[in-house]
Amino acid sequence: MANQRDVECMSLALRLAKRGRYTTRPNPNVGCVITNKYGDVVGTGYHARAGDSHAEIHALKEAGDQANAGTAYVTLEPCCHQGKTGPCTQALIDANISNVVVAMQDPNPLVAGKGIQVLQRHGIHVTDNLLGEQAKLLNRGFIKRMSQGMPWVSVKTATSMDGRTCLNNGQSKWITSEHARHDVQMLRASSDSILTGIGTVLADDPLLNVRVSSKQLGIEGNVIQPYRVIIDPDLKISSKAKLLHTEGITLIFVKQGVSSNEFNEIENCEIIDLPDEDGKFNLKLMLEKLSALEINSVMVEAGSSLVGELINSKLVDELIHYMSPKLMGNSSNGMLDIDEITQMDNCISLEYSDIRKIGNDLRITSLITY
Amino acid sequence: MANQRDVECMSLALRLAKRGRYTTRPNPNVGCVITNKYGDVVGTGYHARAGDSHAEIHALKEAGDQANAGTAYVTLEPCCHQGKTGPCTQALIDANISNVVVAMQDPNPLVAGKGIQVLQRHGIHVTDNLLGEQAKLLNRGFIKRMSQGMPWVSVKTATSMDGRTCLNNGQSKWITSEHARHDVQMLRASSDSILTGIGTVLADDPLLNVRVSSKQLGIEGNVIQPYRVIIDPDLKISSKAKLLHTEGITLIFVKQGVSSNEFNEIENCEIIDLPDEDGKFNLKLMLEKLSALEINSVMVEAGSSLVGELINSKLVDELIHYMSPKLMGNSSNGMLDIDEITQMDNCISLEYSDIRKIGNDLRITSLITY
Repeated sequence: MANQRDVECMSLALRLAKRGRYTTRPNPNVGCVITNKYGDVVGTGYHARAGDSHAEIHALKEAGDQANAGTAYVTLEPCCHQGKTGPCTQALIDANISNVVVAMQDPNPLVAGKGIQVLQRHGIHVTDNLLGEQAKLLNRGFIKRMSQGMPWVSVKTATSMDGRTCLNNGQSKWITSEHARHDVQMLRASSDSILTGIGTVLADDPLLNVRVSSKQLGIEGNVIQPYRVIIDPDLKISSKAKLLHTEGITLIFVKQGVSSNEFNEIENCEIIDLPDEDGKFNLKLMLEKLSALEINSVMVEAGSSLVGELINSKLVDELIHYMSPKLMGNSSNGMLDIDEITQMDNCISLEYSDIRKIGNDLRITSLITY
Repeated sequence: MANQRDVECMSLALRLAKRGRYTTRPNPNVGCVITNKYGDVVGTGYHARAGDSHAEIHALKEAGDQANAGTAYVTLEPCCHQGKTGPCTQALIDANISNVVVAMQDPNPLVAGKGIQVLQRHGIHVTDNLLGEQAKLLNRGFIKRMSQGMPWVSVKTATSMDGRTCLNNGQSKWITSEHARHDVQMLRASSDSILTGIGTVLADDPLLNVRVSSKQLGIEGNVIQPYRVIIDPDLKISSKAKLLHTEGITLIFVKQGVSSNEFNEIENCEIIDLPDEDGKFNLKLMLEKLSALEINSVMVEAGSSLVGELINSKLVDELIHYMSPKLMGNSSNGMLDIDEITQMDNCISLEYSDIRKIGNDLRITSLITY
């Protein structure tokens, strides 16, 4: 049984883990706290970037000899394979740790529990699932990719209070305030990719990049730009589109057989063709491809038809909705082109998970429960 | 200068005043606290129902001799006219009160300040405007009627998160949860009247009454039913409409010259005809008539076109919006038929004043800032 002290130490480990949220991709966020045999914290660490040391290694290094007969709190089951930085289980064994408390097991079904078994075989007492729900929240994308071969999909929407995205004449700048637009930048920074449709690219010629600094994100080193993912079946994008000449990698999904040499010389731009599904662009297959590219999370910033298609296909996990204190009226455009619903019971069902003011706007986060 | 103790006593008086919110109409909510010469609370009171004693009289009665050389905290300037219950200024003078602290003056421009002058002429020290903003919030309707000859107009709306009121086939039961519908009952109970259009009456045959008990409202005595106000220019309502045979008074506004004997025998039903304004139903004139009938507040529960017309005419003060955790899509109906807006700067501007979960729904209250 975990006691209050265990909960405190794991909470600290979770807070440490969170520091990696803008930089560990495609790896998960992991934090570690080491206490000595008297229960005092003697080492802390978190995984900062793929290729750098794991959380446990940082914490053990800080603890030194004081780790002897101590306890390690780790937000994710320690690895037992020889990766870029060696197995963490061995490091814990070598440091003569007596107890290991983990928040959750490795979500990869092929390895889940094996790290724990290695530790136990070496006489280390292991406690599992302490603050497991919180740990899962931290790595929703990584977990979904590992367990389902799909990335976590969040859709960002912004409307007036009456649910309208732009006026009948197409005007929409700006529905939300500068505060909300800054908040979107932070969301982009925490996402592995940003997805949009060719319609948005042709209409707005957006950069779809992160324009906040390392300092604003509170990270060391460079900002990692999320992948830009463009759905463009007929390859209508101009080779001069701004986002193709902006730092970061752009993936353009086209339908099978479509290609052009025009893009060969553009750096960091990849064109991927996909077989249709009954004549329609296969959104699920595209997401599976992203998952195969180790993309944990997708943030959709698109028009009402692509958002609608994703929801119709039950591919959206979460909605992040900015609601501006405005009314635009029924002659303005709506946010969601989904198939017509004919029974109230068949409405798409949400669960509000977070509601907050961002400047003068309201940000409402919901999970979609299909 | 008011001190911390003054603020505490006035806060208590405001809380007392609020107890009358379901029952004092057309009078304002008023609370009073009396402290003795040492600053101890010796009497409290509030105005409960029109015709009953004013707050000061209740508090003075409880204080008895201890009011001598004491202080009276009143949320509204004491009356100085001989109404149903005699002038409160005289009662305070007779009790030998030394200080009177008021939150706000009487909003009737013809009497504002006269009660204070009477007290001062009798050597009582008067402090004005302590927690004035909070006191004004309590009696927004009464103040607007007194100062502008118009009632406070709140519009209740209920939509899915994408701003939709009903499916394309007309289905809308139920967008919001039972908790939200109970909350609407409480709002109805605190409103002097409920306004709707003939469209809603013909479509739903609603009762438009308060169906919560005195106990649920925390009041003594009977629930006071708000006026039901129906806009029905051509008098299309059936004499069998349920709301005509439900406790409470119904006012039906028709265009000039329209009448029918059919309604003569229905109790508590009044038909009021109004001259058109350039061939259109004159919403402003209707609200002025309600104000003249001593109706302080109107809660609109109507369809998207009547709500839109009221907003177009800049007659709405407040929006009380219930947002259900659902998505209904663009084929469903929108909430607001207002004139087409062609510039983002011309969107109707709101100011979120209160945001809370009601069951699984979200209730967003906003002021409209024209």
